Amino acid sequence: MSQVTSHSPVVEPKVKPKFEAFDFRKYQPFAFAPNLPDRTWPNKTIEKAPTWASVDLRDGNQALIDPMTIEQKMQFFKLLVEVGFKEIEIGFPSAAQVEFDFARKLIEENHIPDDVTIQVLVQAREHLIERTFEALQGVRRAVVHVYNSTSKVQRDKVYAKDLEEIKEIAIKGAKMLQDHAAKHPDTEWVFQYSPESFSQTEPDYAVQVVNAVNEVWKPEEGQQVIINLPATVESSMPNVYADQVEYFCRHVKNREHIIVSLHTHNDRGSAVAAAELGVLAGADRIEGTLLGNGERTGNMDIMIMAMNLYSQGVDPELDLSDMSRIVQIVSECNNLPVHPRHPYVGELVFTAFSGSHQDAIKKSLDYNEKNSEATQNIWDVAYLPIDPAHIGRSYQDVVRINSQSGKGGVAYILQRNYGFNLPRWMQIDFSRVVQQKAEDVARELKNEEILEAFESTYLQNSGYELLDHNINNKGGEVEFNGQMTLNGETIDISGHGNGPLSSFIDGVARHTGKQLHIINYSEHAISPEFTYGEEDEAQSDKTNAKAAAYIQLNVDGEIYSGIGTHTSTVSAMLKGALSALSQAF
Amino acid sequence: MSQVTSHSPVVEPKVKPKFEAFDFRKYQPFAFAPNLPDRTWPNKTIEKAPTWASVDLRDGNQALIDPMTIEQKMQFFKLLVEVGFKEIEIGFPSAAQVEFDFARKLIEENHIPDDVTIQVLVQAREHLIERTFEALQGVRRAVVHVYNSTSKVQRDKVYAKDLEEIKEIAIKGAKMLQDHAAKHPDTEWVFQYSPESFSQTEPDYAVQVVNAVNEVWKPEEGQQVIINLPATVESSMPNVYADQVEYFCRHVKNREHIIVSLHTHNDRGSAVAAAELGVLAGADRIEGTLLGNGERTGNMDIMIMAMNLYSQGVDPELDLSDMSRIVQIVSECNNLPVHPRHPYVGELVFTAFSGSHQDAIKKSLDYNEKNSEATQNIWDVAYLPIDPAHIGRSYQDVVRINSQSGKGGVAYILQRNYGFNLPRWMQIDFSRVVQQKAEDVARELKNEEILEAFESTYLQNSGYELLDHNINNKGGEVEFNGQMTLNGETIDISGHGNGPLSSFIDGVARHTGKQLHIINYSEHAISPEFTYGEEDEAQSDKTNAKAAAYIQLNVDGEIYSGIGTHTSTVSAMLKGALSALSQAF
Repeated sequence: MSQVTSHSPVVEPKVKPKFEAFDFRKYQPFAFAPNLPDRTWPNKTIEKAPTWASVDLRDGNQALIDPMTIEQKMQFFKLLVEVGFKEIEIGFPSAAQVEFDFARKLIEENHIPDDVTIQVLVQAREHLIERTFEALQGVRRAVVHVYNSTSKVQRDKVYAKDLEEIKEIAIKGAKMLQDHAAKHPDTEWVFQYSPESFSQTEPDYAVQVVNAVNEVWKPEEGQQVIINLPATVESSMPNVYADQVEYFCRHVKNREHIIVSLHTHNDRGSAVAAAELGVLAGADRIEGTLLGNGERTGNMDIMIMAMNLYSQGVDPELDLSDMSRIVQIVSECNNLPVHPRHPYVGELVFTAFSGSHQDAIKKSLDYNEKNSEATQNIWDVAYLPIDPAHIGRSYQDVVRINSQSGKGGVAYILQRNYGFNLPRWMQIDFSRVVQQKAEDVARELKNEEILEAFESTYLQNSGYELLDHNINNKGGEVEFNGQMTLNGETIDISGHGNGPLSSFIDGVARHTGKQLHIINYSEHAISPEFTYGEEDEAQSDKTNAKAAAYIQLNVDGEIYSGIGTHTSTVSAMLKGALSALSQAF
Repeated sequence: MSQVTSHSPVVEPKVKPKFEAFDFRKYQPFAFAPNLPDRTWPNKTIEKAPTWASVDLRDGNQALIDPMTIEQKMQFFKLLVEVGFKEIEIGFPSAAQVEFDFARKLIEENHIPDDVTIQVLVQAREHLIERTFEALQGVRRAVVHVYNSTSKVQRDKVYAKDLEEIKEIAIKGAKMLQDHAAKHPDTEWVFQYSPESFSQTEPDYAVQVVNAVNEVWKPEEGQQVIINLPATVESSMPNVYADQVEYFCRHVKNREHIIVSLHTHNDRGSAVAAAELGVLAGADRIEGTLLGNGERTGNMDIMIMAMNLYSQGVDPELDLSDMSRIVQIVSECNNLPVHPRHPYVGELVFTAFSGSHQDAIKKSLDYNEKNSEATQNIWDVAYLPIDPAHIGRSYQDVVRINSQSGKGGVAYILQRNYGFNLPRWMQIDFSRVVQQKAEDVARELKNEEILEAFESTYLQNSGYELLDHNINNKGGEVEFNGQMTLNGETIDISGHGNGPLSSFIDGVARHTGKQLHIINYSEHAISPEFTYGEEDEAQSDKTNAKAAAYIQLNVDGEIYSGIGTHTSTVSAMLKGALSALSQAF
């Protein structure tokens, strides 16, 4: 990989920073990319979930402002088991008493299901390893995860040791693990080694160190071995990390006898991408946390990666169906908020405010409903990568209305909440009303406010009421005779037409001397599940479905739309006409 | 790219979900990846910042619960200009009055600097395009960004139109733009076209539609053209998106005459990775927002991508030095919180609680200070991808203490805040005290609480005070004679040794009958910038540096550490011995 860079002390920044300390020339290009022009990972896709390992109780916990209490750790552990994790790193027992005690509690009180393996972390140091095995006494099966730092910055600045000396630490750690494990033959021991800060380690050196560790452990002779490749600090683009992983997998000895695990962090905002590309590059196992808690910017978020698989038809092998409960427990134990835009779980991630998005969602859902057989109930909806209902989210979240919203969204709200199925021309008319209102208040509108605007615009025809009337159909010719109030005044209406609406409109035109034409007309029954307006109409028969009628009139060249509701379809229609007239006059 | 998948209606989920709705079998594998086995992007690195285009005021704004007021838009616009954006999408003027008014205000009140170009979005529809040009009347230069949806789901379900019909919408939009622009020849017009939902469009079809648009615009004859390739919904891994971008760049006509722009969203948590890989794949320009606001999970976060470049020595071409001010204005205008783990800006992203991390940071910083010439002030510190000071963050954030912390972190706090430079053996001793305390309170410890623990452990030797004394050195042989209080009782001390400390300890041993040996000893001046304890010692000369002495004693086989401070180095040393003794007796 060519690493030409514009970096040079004489280059002047293109934009002059306000504070001189802000200077890109203080940094170097990434120096640990392997040369792998024949990489194969970009030709692959993920067809199966990796083995998931939760490190919430260790890497996640150690990054909390207030680490979890034993009670919280227990609650979190039970959640992880419920969600379906089979490997759970429970802590660093040699580092703190609470960590030690938690391991003992899990083991002594039999909290670990038969198909779940606990994992503990320890540095490659004798007294810590000894204490770790003490904490694990009596466990059925456990992963003991030993690590030492191998990166150049750690070798040079933190340990002041050379390549051989650092490798020696790893080898010693491997031997110590082996020795201690041999003393406890009743437990099924899995050994895990991390060349910590792998991603900032020279690729060939990482392979050397791991080979040296495996020469001790001998995975080819049956010892179960996990080799974990941490991006302890995310320090390159995810494709470079994938190259590092593929390079490692191609060069490490006995690849077929070891499990390659990844552990990525989110310093560059790409922890999930790095893990995904790393799986393409050959990894078998992914360490991460729920909601991505962890040191600094956090670990990779297993929920996002699992849901990414889910959304493309791959079994995530985790049960994330009760998402809101998972989020609640995790955020309480971590005492960290969930961002409203957090993928899959944030408050706003299934919400569309934009008119065109709302419209497209509505049309996609309508299409799927009408074509459920042809679509085989496969989810494919514009702007919604997954069906929110699959993780317990309501459709109420999906469409919310503000000044950026359009007719589709407003129509969706009225349809879903109140049973009004507005025709397109009515949607256009009403969306102008809503947009103006949203601009006036300069904030989101609640559903009730939308209904209120709907009612005050179309359903309160004060001063316009149809009184007693008679509709007579003789050979297809309809005659309307009756009375209505118009601006408070009672007037007689007589007209002719081919139906009740046209004869009524004819009568109004005759009386008022206006030019009146019906442009559009639509009517539907409101589904009985909606109870809109019933309390207002004592005479309505509640067992009958109510009709909603939408009328658009041309009144002296201007266009007005009106709506009427009634258990009688004819009355609904005439009320709709009155609604349009009340706006016109 | 092979797209074998485990998806099939007869596959049973490995983990049985609690709610049946949670079913991966309702989804299909991604179907729009191009076949590009000879892709070149993975061999490239980013050596130069792309052209940044902020869409905060449009895509960001339209996704807000409460869209911005004109005043907020103006404040945000000014911030974007200050930060160094040269292309700013200001809104969708034909969609809402406030959007129209904001465009007029910017133009009529001359808020647009000469080197900044505003951009507006519009659908490919005549009356909207007309209104858009009305909003732009009199502007010096502008990008008019027209779009229509091209994805399969939108064609089939939202528009019910075929490939030709959808392409026709794009062509018509292109012509309308051209016609309207021709009527306003005083403005320098840049045309931008988005095949909206590009990432869910068949790669060849996207190329066809764009070629058709460019046959109208003729970029090869001088018309400035931006072709924007949105991942309107992030629906694949970022490497697949990069393949789509490279495929597009290789197949579109007149590639050298058009600017290829990307616009990614974060539905799968990889918006930044997709944009970065897309730049490798050939894109020239990136649309995004500050802090990643935008529809659903948000747009790609330009701050993260810019800081990623910065951290590897590439000029970000944006001034992000006054990060806290940027974050404040953005989060106020958006009325959205910033997550504590948000890369580069979150409260916790430069914080290390873990002992080993704290230790490594401290050692790296010490190394750099001692070797500033050799390191040429290049930043390379374990666990800190950038120097927090470069974006106005204090080192106070870096190390915080809880039960997961170790000696390095605690030592760092005492050194940076109070001037105590603890030797390693003293760090070990005190870290046990701190860890116990943190476990007891089960939360993070404040700096003041650490100091309090430090004082109560080492600096309050109640009942142990050195009174008048005489130290006599005769030919290298030192004799100590004096009085001290021991458990409230005043006693005489006489002893011999090769220095004041050893002779004093000898005297205490003689008097008490205990076995006493000095194991470790260390002393340093506390830098005058620290004022620890001055208020307590009226006699101290404030112009003199104060000394801190650290003593470790073996008392009858048990080890005790003590600390003393005084303007006299000898008195500090003897007080340190008293401190250790007070713990022993």
